Order: sequence, then C-alpha cells, then structure tokens
Amino acid sequence: MPSARLIDGKAISAEIHSETGARVVALREKHGVVPGITFVRVGEDPASQAYVRMKGAKAEQLGIRSETIVLEEKTAQAELLALIGRLNGDAKVHGILVQAPLPKQIKEDEIFSAIDYRKDVDGFHPLNVGKLLLGQHPLFKPCTPAGVHELLIRSGVPIRGAEVAVLGRGNIVGKPMAAILLQKEEHGDATVTLLHSRSKNITEHCRRADIIIAAMGQAHFVKAAMVKPGAVVIDVGVNRVNDPQAKNGYRLVGDVDFEAVREVAGAITPNPGGVGPMTIAMLLSNTVRAAEMACDGESRA
Amino acid sequence: MPSARLIDGKAISAEIHSETGARVVALREKHGVVPGITFVRVGEDPASQAYVRMKGAKAEQLGIRSETIVLEEKTAQAELLALIGRLNGDAKVHGILVQAPLPKQIKEDEIFSAIDYRKDVDGFHPLNVGKLLLGQHPLFKPCTPAGVHELLIRSGVPIRGAEVAVLGRGNIVGKPMAAILLQKEEHGDATVTLLHSRSKNITEHCRRADIIIAAMGQAHFVKAAMVKPGAVVIDVGVNRVNDPQAKNGYRLVGDVDFEAVREVAGAITPNPGGVGPMTIAMLLSNTVRAAEMACDGESRA
Repeated sequence: MPSARLIDGKAISAEIHSETGARVVALREKHGVVPGITFVRVGEDPASQAYVRMKGAKAEQLGIRSETIVLEEKTAQAELLALIGRLNGDAKVHGILVQAPLPKQIKEDEIFSAIDYRKDVDGFHPLNVGKLLLGQHPLFKPCTPAGVHELLIRSGVPIRGAEVAVLGRGNIVGKPMAAILLQKEEHGDATVTLLHSRSKNITEHCRRADIIIAAMGQAHFVKAAMVKPGAVVIDVGVNRVNDPQAKNGYRLVGDVDFEAVREVAGAITPNPGGVGPMTIAMLLSNTVRAAEMACDGESRA
Repeated sequence: MPSARLIDGKAISAEIHSETGARVVALREKHGVVPGITFVRVGEDPASQAYVRMKGAKAEQLGIRSETIVLEEKTAQAELLALIGRLNGDAKVHGILVQAPLPKQIKEDEIFSAIDYRKDVDGFHPLNVGKLLLGQHPLFKPCTPAGVHELLIRSGVPIRGAEVAVLGRGNIVGKPMAAILLQKEEHGDATVTLLHSRSKNITEHCRRADIIIAAMGQAHFVKAAMVKPGAVVIDVGVNRVNDPQAKNGYRLVGDVDFEAVREVAGAITPNPGGVGPMTIAMLLSNTVRAAEMACDGESRA
C-alpha cells in the first residue's frame, strides 16, 4: 500500500533555527546587539507555562536573551496594559509575546493591539494582519501559518494555482493562513476556500483540494475519505483526548486521522513533529527580525 | 423564460442615504456639528474628476460639508503626506478621501497608511483592514464590499452557510469582500472561495456557488454557463469597451454578461444601477460615522 511522504517539521525547523542563530551572531558582531524577547504570562495555566518555558529555552539556545514576566491570574487589564507600555519603551526588548489564553477580565484584542507593532513578534497586531491581507509585507506574520507556509515551500509543495482547503477560521491560524496563500506572490497564487463550522459540503471541498490545512481543533476530523489521492495534508490541530493508559489521563492528537490519511495523501505532516516545531522557529526568526529592524532604524537615524 | 429578480442598488442606496441624512440632522441638533469630508485629487484624470464631483455633490445634498483639494500631477509624495498631516489635525475634517489612482511617483500604500485611521472613510488603512479580517469591527469597512454586503442583506439574500465565489483578489473589493463574508457573524458565516487570474477551475467554482461576486475587471467574464440556476450574481465591474456608436467612443460594461446571465440567475444586480450607487452610500455613511465618533470622543473627554 502506498504511504505518504512525511513532511518533517523537526528537520525543517532545525534548518530555520540554524539560519536564525547565524543572524544572532551577525547582529552581535555588526551592532553589538543581543536580540531580546519578553514573555508575559498571566496566571498558572499549565499548558501556557510549558509553552513559554519551551520557547524561552530555545531562544536562549540560539543566543536570544529571554525573560518571562508572570502576573497573577486576577491581574486587571490596566495593569497588563501598563506593563506592555513599559516594554514598548524598553530598547532592550525587541519582541513581546503575551501568552494566550488570558483570564476573562482581560480583552485579548486590546492587549494585542497595545503591543508596539514593531515588537509584535506573534504577528497578531491588526496593523500587521491588515498589511498581510493587503500584500504589503507586514513586519511579522503570525507564527503558525507562517510556519505552515515555510513547511510547504521548503518541502517543495507547489502552491501556485493549487486548490487549498483551509479548515478553521480562527484569527491565529485559519484567517492569516488564507491571507498568506492567496497573495499574488511567488509562493502564493493559491485558490483558497476557508471552511468552518457553518460550512456545508466540507467533504466535497476537501476532496477537490490539492492541499488541506486542518486547523479546526477537532480530533481526527479529517478522514481518509475526505482526501484526494496524492493531496498534501497539513495538521495544525492539538486536541486532548481521554486516554486512561496515558500518565496524565489524556493524550494529544491532531485534526487529522493520520494513520488512515497517510495511505491516501501524497505528503503529510506527522503530529507531533510537524507544524508544532515550526511555530517556535518562526517566533524566534521574528524576534531576530525585530532586533535587525531596530538596528537598521538606528543606523539610518 | 424565467428571468432573475433585479437587485436595485438605486433604491437600496436611496434608503441608506435617507438614514445617513437623518444622522446628519441628529448630529447638528445634538452636538451642533456638521460632518465634513475632504477629497484630495492629484492630477486631472477625467474619471477621478467625475467620481469626486459626484461624491461631493451627494455629500452636500445630505448636509455633509465637502471640500476638494486638487494637487498637480507632478506633486511629490512628501507634499501629499504633509497635506494629509494637516488634514489629520483639522477637527473640522471628519473624513479624508485620497482619490486613486495616484501618479507613479506616489506610493498609494504609504498614503493610505498616513491617513488617521479615525478619518479613513475609504476603509483602506491597514489597521482597519486588519480589524476587518480579525472580526474586530473596524471603524470603517471599504465602501464597495461593504455596499455589496448591504445589498445582499437588504435584499434578503441568505448569506449564512452560502457558497460564495469572489472573482478577483484586489485590495479594494475582492480581499475585503471575502473578509466580510467569512466572519462568524449574523450576516456572515459564508464559505468563501477567492478566485483570481491564477485560479484553475474557475467555471466549476462559480457553478457550485450560491452567490457570485464578480470583481475581476474583465468585461462580461461571467457567462450564463458559469452560473448555477437560481444563484445570486453581483456585478462589481466597470470596464470600458470600444463602441463607435457611443459619444465618447466607448461604453462601460460590467464583469457579468447581464442579458444572458439574468435568464439563469435567481437574482442579479443591474450595472449600472447595482453596486455603483452603494459605494457612495457607504462612503457618506462612513463619513457621518467618523463625525459621530469624534463627538462621542469629545463628550467622553
């Protein structure tokens, strides 16, 4: 039985980390500057703790200065805004990442909009999102869809003219993913359909797609029967399913029924080991970009 | 032979103008404020002259103060930016519209980004576009796609769950149109496919669409054979075709082969008299909104 080529997110992210590391060295040698990222975490959500720890550790490995500021769960929005204001004004802080989800009393939209768009390494600021949709080369693209884009490019998947089904219209993945792929650009020019909970005919849309990007947040949503033979399937999902055998009582699975779909698809991301490592690679690349721009700005001034 | 219901842009825009006029009266009575829009035109393009004249005349009819500033064709970008800076700071100017296209020496992107986003009645500022894509209720939506949206809503076309083919991925119509229709909102929730010059299978995509929005800029591109019986067809196109019989040697036609398509479609916009009048209705509604927000801001301060 034929089996899909695996798109190796670990290998490709390692390639990007190595490029990012070289840029860190160049910044130090040319400008005496160490790129810095500040993580802000509110409350003690265990997943957020783990994410921030992982991102910080990888940053340090590449020579990026990283600090984490932890605020209490009951922090008021005004207090978080004041902290962001201070970080916006701190020249040593090139990138600011406020880890979502935030407690209920805080409006995420207002927080992301308050971050200086030149330090918005998560790519969530509406100004950067607007430039993305307009094809105006935003300073930063959101890390997960940018990571998926790099995966496609670096594994040689043809994008131009491809029929793409994006499953899920979230602000973090689905919408910016569509915005990236539909641009009139070398690695764009795809015909994108954005599918979501209110879409009819999801199976038909998926079955005619050359590339399926699953970011719905539903465990094993994409079945083999939904995939055209030879199509490329990218699994962005991270879902908890109960598993009494597992040490925490659950395990993490993707939006794609991997074992079945790999027998139909032409290429597929494993999960874990596919999109996940790319998100952090793009975050750190964005952070170094922020530092590079700050240096360029100074040398022009 | 069955013939499509006509979606009457003139009647619907008249309805909106009448609502806008009532808001102008309310602003005067409550705040003593007259909403004002300033048009900036660079050079002597006859179409731009006509557009600005038409918009200005309609504004005055509704009690909106309108002024037009005309700069020479050879105006430098810095000079135009200085003018925009002055208008941004002028409290009597609630809306600023720089008429495109601009001469080659001027970068449109930079001009639209320089307009205060609170005066961006054209809805082209990347901050407003970003909020649009993110579903964060931008201050202003781009006038033409917002006008198409109103046409659909006010003529009772079901949008939720509808399959929509948007033809054309321009920044003025196609991209923001897709962004409006795909939102998780009362008059959103459509499944949108954005088609463009690099798309394959355009006919198939159109044939399965419940709503076709044609904004490609190609005369009579949408033929009857591309339309599913009963579908709704919205024609945004304005194309010049040679016509020795016409007084100027040309006439304006849409992107839809109207006479043939009306025999297949369930509803269709005439062109002219469909989308065109809606664009100006949304522009003037946006202008009054800008004035309303300025008043709200003052009364809160």
